[in-house]
Amino acid sequence: MADISAELVKELRERTGAGFMDCKRALVETDGDLDKAIATLRERGLAAAAKKSGRDAREGLVSSYIHTGGRVGVLIEVNCETDFVARNEGFRVFVKDLCLQIAAASPLYVTREEVPAAEITKERDIAAAQVQGKPPAAVQKIVEGKMEKFFSTVCLLDQPFVKLPEKTVKEMLTEQVTKIGENIQVRRFIRYQLGS
Amino acid sequence: MADISAELVKELRERTGAGFMDCKRALVETDGDLDKAIATLRERGLAAAAKKSGRDAREGLVSSYIHTGGRVGVLIEVNCETDFVARNEGFRVFVKDLCLQIAAASPLYVTREEVPAAEITKERDIAAAQVQGKPPAAVQKIVEGKMEKFFSTVCLLDQPFVKLPEKTVKEMLTEQVTKIGENIQVRRFIRYQLGS
Repeated sequence: MADISAELVKELRERTGAGFMDCKRALVETDGDLDKAIATLRERGLAAAAKKSGRDAREGLVSSYIHTGGRVGVLIEVNCETDFVARNEGFRVFVKDLCLQIAAASPLYVTREEVPAAEITKERDIAAAQVQGKPPAAVQKIVEGKMEKFFSTVCLLDQPFVKLPEKTVKEMLTEQVTKIGENIQVRRFIRYQLGS
Repeated sequence: MADISAELVKELRERTGAGFMDCKRALVETDGDLDKAIATLRERGLAAAAKKSGRDAREGLVSSYIHTGGRVGVLIEVNCETDFVARNEGFRVFVKDLCLQIAAASPLYVTREEVPAAEITKERDIAAAQVQGKPPAAVQKIVEGKMEKFFSTVCLLDQPFVKLPEKTVKEMLTEQVTKIGENIQVRRFIRYQLGS
């Protein structure tokens, strides 16, 4: 019999809304496979069909911005630690500024850690091919510079803050964290442009 | 030498902003491989780094809705054929209603054609396992019924319209098309729920 942790049972309960013993039993029967356990509970009519993760621990704000008569739109989720901060006016203004930033500067990722490795490799190759007839050390330095430029184009946190371009978005975020005294994280965003 | 169509050259021009002859040359050199041609143009400094598709042919509206103090947000793109319709008040109200629909009813896809085949198979298996001790013909009928229920839960167009549940969203859309006399398509949407 698989050893079923209380944590796993808890997650299954949150995912399905089923009772403790039903969840535990389903996990034992499926050797702790969460997806199979969900399927088992559903077969028994003990779990709802499309129930998504019930975890709602994080506080923060979902906000949006629509630009130029509905041709560009942004949706963002920014997390903080308490509901108190989420309702703070300064925090709300900052989140709105992030929406404007995304509408204006079209980032593709929140952080450079999110950029797929294949895309980084491709950028690096292109950058290297652009440099001709220089010693290897110089080539490397130039390529690094071009990569920094690339990250500051596609990554929200590395972009110059549109309203105050001498600072990056990350620096503005750090200022907010200091001012508010709570961790703030841009969890996700999306930008729609009409027809593209 | 690969035969390069004018259409391919046009697409490369739209994607890179480079000149006609540069695009044609890059395509010839890469045997018509669009991605490689883009990389080639970039190596030569003839194309911008993060230029997205320049096509902006479709008209319509990007719209958003934020619910319950910033805990749920929706972003949607609805296409129509002319800018004239995009500015039409009735069209705008309908798009706003679709946002409310998505916020309230949490669909995952626009149409049932978008549901991954693996997910449909899994749903079908679960539905079949829920039916016990009936003749095969009855089982099939019950499973089909359960699948219809599934699609009407996860697909926006198959959902009952929240504001008028005796009609589906698709029926409401068809009414709009008839009223406005233009094709209308929900191109994409996304729903963020805080912390989940």
